[in-house]
Formats: sequence, structure tokens, C-alpha cells
Amino acid sequence: MLAEIITIGDEILIGQIVDTNSAWMARQLNLIGVQVKQVTSVSDDADHIIEALQQAEKRAGIILITGGLGPTKDDITKLTLAKYFDMGFRRDEETLQHVTAIFEKLNRPMIEGNRKQADVPEGCVVIKNKNGTAPCMWFENNGNIIVSMPGVPYEMMYLMEEEILPRIKLQFKLPFIVHRTILTAGIGESFLAAEIADIEDSLPAHIKLAYLPRLGQVRLRLSGTGTDEGVLKSEVQHYAAKLISKIKKHVVIDDDIALEKAILDIMKRRNLTLSTAESCTGGYIAHLITQHAGSSAVFAGGAVVYSNQLKQSVLGVKTTTLDSFGAVSEETVKEMAAGAISHFKTDYAVAVSGIAGPDGGTPEKPVGTVWIALATRDKVFAKRFNFGNKRIQNIERSAIAALTMIVNDLNQD
Amino acid sequence: MLAEIITIGDEILIGQIVDTNSAWMARQLNLIGVQVKQVTSVSDDADHIIEALQQAEKRAGIILITGGLGPTKDDITKLTLAKYFDMGFRRDEETLQHVTAIFEKLNRPMIEGNRKQADVPEGCVVIKNKNGTAPCMWFENNGNIIVSMPGVPYEMMYLMEEEILPRIKLQFKLPFIVHRTILTAGIGESFLAAEIADIEDSLPAHIKLAYLPRLGQVRLRLSGTGTDEGVLKSEVQHYAAKLISKIKKHVVIDDDIALEKAILDIMKRRNLTLSTAESCTGGYIAHLITQHAGSSAVFAGGAVVYSNQLKQSVLGVKTTTLDSFGAVSEETVKEMAAGAISHFKTDYAVAVSGIAGPDGGTPEKPVGTVWIALATRDKVFAKRFNFGNKRIQNIERSAIAALTMIVNDLNQD
Repeated sequence: MLAEIITIGDEILIGQIVDTNSAWMARQLNLIGVQVKQVTSVSDDADHIIEALQQAEKRAGIILITGGLGPTKDDITKLTLAKYFDMGFRRDEETLQHVTAIFEKLNRPMIEGNRKQADVPEGCVVIKNKNGTAPCMWFENNGNIIVSMPGVPYEMMYLMEEEILPRIKLQFKLPFIVHRTILTAGIGESFLAAEIADIEDSLPAHIKLAYLPRLGQVRLRLSGTGTDEGVLKSEVQHYAAKLISKIKKHVVIDDDIALEKAILDIMKRRNLTLSTAESCTGGYIAHLITQHAGSSAVFAGGAVVYSNQLKQSVLGVKTTTLDSFGAVSEETVKEMAAGAISHFKTDYAVAVSGIAGPDGGTPEKPVGTVWIALATRDKVFAKRFNFGNKRIQNIERSAIAALTMIVNDLNQD
Repeated sequence: MLAEIITIGDEILIGQIVDTNSAWMARQLNLIGVQVKQVTSVSDDADHIIEALQQAEKRAGIILITGGLGPTKDDITKLTLAKYFDMGFRRDEETLQHVTAIFEKLNRPMIEGNRKQADVPEGCVVIKNKNGTAPCMWFENNGNIIVSMPGVPYEMMYLMEEEILPRIKLQFKLPFIVHRTILTAGIGESFLAAEIADIEDSLPAHIKLAYLPRLGQVRLRLSGTGTDEGVLKSEVQHYAAKLISKIKKHVVIDDDIALEKAILDIMKRRNLTLSTAESCTGGYIAHLITQHAGSSAVFAGGAVVYSNQLKQSVLGVKTTTLDSFGAVSEETVKEMAAGAISHFKTDYAVAVSGIAGPDGGTPEKPVGTVWIALATRDKVFAKRFNFGNKRIQNIERSAIAALTMIVNDLNQD
């Protein structure tokens, strides 16, 4: 079964907001075996919306529309749908009561624009929007389903989870879809492809392999489609195991989670603690880690030591080391990591010192030169990296490389 | 002039990645007077890509395509474009040299898949992609422009800024667009709208006002469109000055730059230094600051003190303070800020301690309770905030609030 998503509203087209709804909806649809064929963002313009609907109906059986249901003049989704389906309007009493109750609760006067939110095209099924005033509308047309939802993320998410996805599952006989993701690091996409070409070529038609590269990592994703969930799972598992055994040394995590989350999970299980000592990454590694709920069980904290003075006073890096080898050096970064272990009293510490750019490069240490050290209570080692000349990218790649060093070390045990 | 954006690749349609490229591209296009009519995300499927191109060409004169240019089998954009324009392939020598140089620099062997990245449809203009191996391709068709770029954000952004936008400006007669942005904090959108309603109502038709709310801030953007740049600039300036004088106490920066960049600029001018002491924001404030080139002139560094032990050992917070008032308290956060001033020897320090959630809330200090302190060499003060119950949002809102406290203090001098 194919679906399409249409988002209505100028705010996406002027770049004011990033469309996070569609990715979320696509993920949910894929999980129940519905494949998204196209995502289309159109403006608040009736002819354009109608054109998008006509084309979507040719390609897919399920059309999910978000946005354009507010009470202001520029919200024309409902009028346009009535025109598209050639329907008149009726006032939906249940919706009117719901809207009235919301206004009473907020102690605000209702104006005609608010009451109009209860007017819906005659031929649609109204689905109550518990989190807002704009009702969700479900249309059926030539065997296709067209659903109009508000664009406010938590209203849309609630409606999808509680109403739309269950109804889709009831109405259509859907295949099972099984995804399996393997995160690799330290090998380029084309080399990875060459290494696993024989496995990729041997995949049956209903199992696809995708390469998702990002900042020195490549995610491999196997997606199988079928009717028997058990058979499908074991088939996907079979090919996943083949891939993993073939590229074992590049596999970082055998799961679809963020690198830092994998580290937190492993360290929590083993009762280990972590600290960071960051120069050029400027707190980014700590930020990635602390985004995750529960990170405090593992992560004690860290130092962001931009100045040499702080490298000495907070981490105990020796003046002679900084003078002899410079801040971006194997010696300094190892002392930073070891200093974090002894000052912050954690089991693991990672330290990063590099030249993020655009300034600060020299012929021997050009912009993009980064030293990363990993220390535990009984060892410390460092690696040199040469990234590019883009500051933000150097920060991100350094962080990914540092996290990869941690997970690789944990995986060795 | 109308443009459309087409993103190619299954990763958006399965919800693996959120399409942030399109919003960024739409913003840049709007800034030069090009309006985006539609954004379409399609899968790696030749027929589907061709259909999307045909329809986009009917609606818009500029089609910007991202994605599907990698060296693996599932990347079919280039083949599909050659088919669409009925062109053969040629090997582009300059691209081949560029790809070869990248591989030599990385000290990696090239395989045929990499060399093939230099093969391009005969009739396109190749634009060098300095940040990657996939070349950017510029086609012209019936007076329309079709550009294919890699989907990797920093590659696409560089190409847009350095190559595509300047070429579009040369090729088309675009109107002048003058934007002026005013950043406000501490006042809601509807209240702001009420305060400036008279000015908004007095705007001429060719000058529009947009409200761009995000995380406790509202950006007001005046956009004027016209043919005489000088006249337009002074008109927009006139209304900007009126707005600023009306809402003076809410204006944080009178410029379209990030809050932390404004802080760095002011502090650098005044020869001031800054450090951070972060608990619940976990390094995010330091990260925001150190994203900016030249931040080391102002930012000495900071501490990420998740554990109470680090709050004491790194920042000198007293055990009695933690015992009596807890980690999330006015007393603790003030000692953190004062500790940063004295240990890190900076002129300014900001400290944050709060409950980001989802766990750790109590009836007196629910999730979202955040204390932020600002210290200088002669003062320290703190504010309590109550944000929501979403972890990531609490981190972001805390950072914005902390930066706002710094800039407001700097603006007072």
C-alpha cells in the first residue's frame, strides 16, 4: 500500500519552519507496512492544493494532508477539500460542543471564526481532535482515503497514533515491513559497497539495502517486505548476520540508535562513568551525550578548555608539554584525557584538541588537524585525524570520531 | 520568479532523516527575491523523478534538486537526468582530477565507482563541488534552470552560497528585497502584535512584517520588495526604527545574527572574556558559542558539571550549599557562576542548573525548573525559569535564556 503526504502552508515554503511532521508520519507509516511514495509541500492556494491532490490520488491509495485548518483567512484547506470533492458544508454538532468547551475552559469569548471550525464538508467522517479546535476529516474517494489533519505536531501525532493508523490497519491488508540498521565507521560508502557487493547482489527482490552516509559513518539499512512476519524477520536477520560477519571490523553498533546513546547503554550496563575534555569541539560531545534522558547515570561532566590556561588549571596539563608540543598534539591531548580521569574521577575520559578553523592553521598543523585521546584508569592512547576546512563540520566529525573511539574500545572488552 | 525544490532519496520518505535542506534553501531563495512554489520529496525511482521534474517545470522556472548523487547503486539522479534531457555521458576531466586529488589526500585507493562520479550528462555545465566528490550539474531547458546538487547539507550549502544563488541573480532580473530583522525576547507573539498593531497597519503594501517565534524569542522581520534599492532601504529603515522605538525594552539585537554571535561581537569589542558553568544544558551553551569562528578571543572555556562532585571540585560550590538548597537552587547556581569567574579568571560567567527531565522532578521543583546565574567580577544574580516537560526543549530554552541574560547585561552598560 502506498501513501503520500501533503503539507499545506506558506511557512514551510519560506523556510520559516522545518517540516518535521512528514518524517515522523513516514516513520509511523513504514512501521505498519505503508510505503510513502511522495511528500509534497504546497502553499495556501486552492488550485495548487487541488493539483497536488489529483496527482497524489493517481500514485497512492492513502493521502495524508496536514495544515491549513486554522481559523484565519489564509487557512483554506477545508474549503478546497469541499471544492475538490464537490460537497456542501454541514455544521458538526459534536465539534461545535468540543470547540465551545475549549473556549469556556480558557474563559475566552468565541467569535464566528471559531464556530466555523465546526463546519465540515458534508461527505466526510469527522474525527475528534482532542488537543485542538480544528477537527480531523476522513474522506473516501474511488477506494482512496484522504485525511486532513492539523499541522500542529502534537495534535497531528495524537490523531495519527490514536485514530488514523489504527483505521488504516483495519481498512487495508498490509504487508509486514522489517528494518534492520547497522552503523559502520571508518570506511567510505564506495569501499563498503565494494566489500559487500556479493551479499547485496544476492538479496531477494523483497529485501532492499540502503547506504546512509553521514560524517564519516555509514548506516546500512536492510528493509524487507512480506506477508509472514516470522519468515521475514529471519530472512532479514540472515542477511544482516552475513553483512556483519563480512564487515565486522567496521561495525560500530548493530542497532538503529545514536552513537552516544549506544555508549550510554553499554556503560550503564557495565556501571562505568565517563567524562570529557574538549577543546575544539567546544562542548559539543558533552551536549550530544546529555541530550539523552538518563545520561547522568554515566556522564559525570567535563571541561571545555578553549584557553591553554584552562587546560592547565582544570585538567593539569603541564606547561612544558604545551610549550614543547603545542595545544594540538598527541602529548597535550593525552594529558587532557588523563587529567580528566584523575580530576573528574571517571572510568573513561575522552579528550579532543584540534584546529577547527578557519584560522589557526600552520603548514605542519593545517586547519582540520585534530588529536583525540581516550583514557581509562589503566591506559591512554591518541589518534590524529585530518578533517576538512569547515569549522562546523570539523566539530561534528571530531565528535563522531571521539564517540567512535569510545564505542570501539568498549566493544573490545 | 518561482522555484521548486525536489529532494531525491528514500531516507526522507522512510522518515530516517528530516529534510532540513529544503527549509534552508527556501530561506536563501526568498532572500534574493525567488519564491518557492512547491517542495517535493521523491524516492530513488527514475520514472517518479521524471514525473516530478515534468510537473515542476510547468510551475516554476528554477528547479533545484538535491540528493541521489552518491557512488552507490541506489543513487540514480544523474542517470535519470541524462534520460530526462536525452543526453549521453562525458567524463569531466576537471571533476576527475578533483576526485583523484581528494582520494590522494585521504591516501585511499580509487575504485571505478569513484571515477564514475566524474561522468556527467553531456549538455550540463559542471560546477565544482569543493567539499565532496559528487559534482553539481546545471542544466538549461526551455528557458528553465534545473540544478542537481548533492544532498549532504554542507556540500549543498556551500554550492548554493558560492555558486547557485549568484548565478541565479545574474541570470534573472529579480526585484530588490530588503530584509531587516529585530530580535525580541521575553514577550509573546500576540502581545507583541498588539503593541505594534498601529505600525503594522501603516505599512505600505510592498513592505511586509513577519513574526518568527522560537523558544521564547520572537524575530520580527520587515521585508520590502521594490525596484530602487536605495529608496527601499531607507523605507525599511524608517519602519524598523519606528518598531524599535515602540518596543525598545524587548529588543535584544537589532540585527539578523545569532544571540551568541552578538555576545561575542560586543565582548570582543570591549575586550571582555566569558566562561560557562553548565549542569542541565550539558555543554550546549559552550557549543553554541564555539560554533562561531573567532570565539576563542572571548570564550576561555567552561565546565559541564553534571555530578554534584564536579560542581564542588571544579567550581568550588560548597557542600553545605548543595546539602541545604540542592543542586537546582539560586544559591548553588550563584556559587557556580562565581566559581567560574574565580577559577577560570574571566570577566563574565553564566551558570545553569535545572531539571531537564523526564526524571528528577519534585512537587516543589518540577521538570522544567531552571536556575540561571550571571556573574561578573563585581556582581552575581540569578533568575528562576519554569519551562515545559520536554528535555531537548528545556535544554534549548535554558541556553537561550542564559544568552539573553548575558546580552541584556551587556546592553545595559
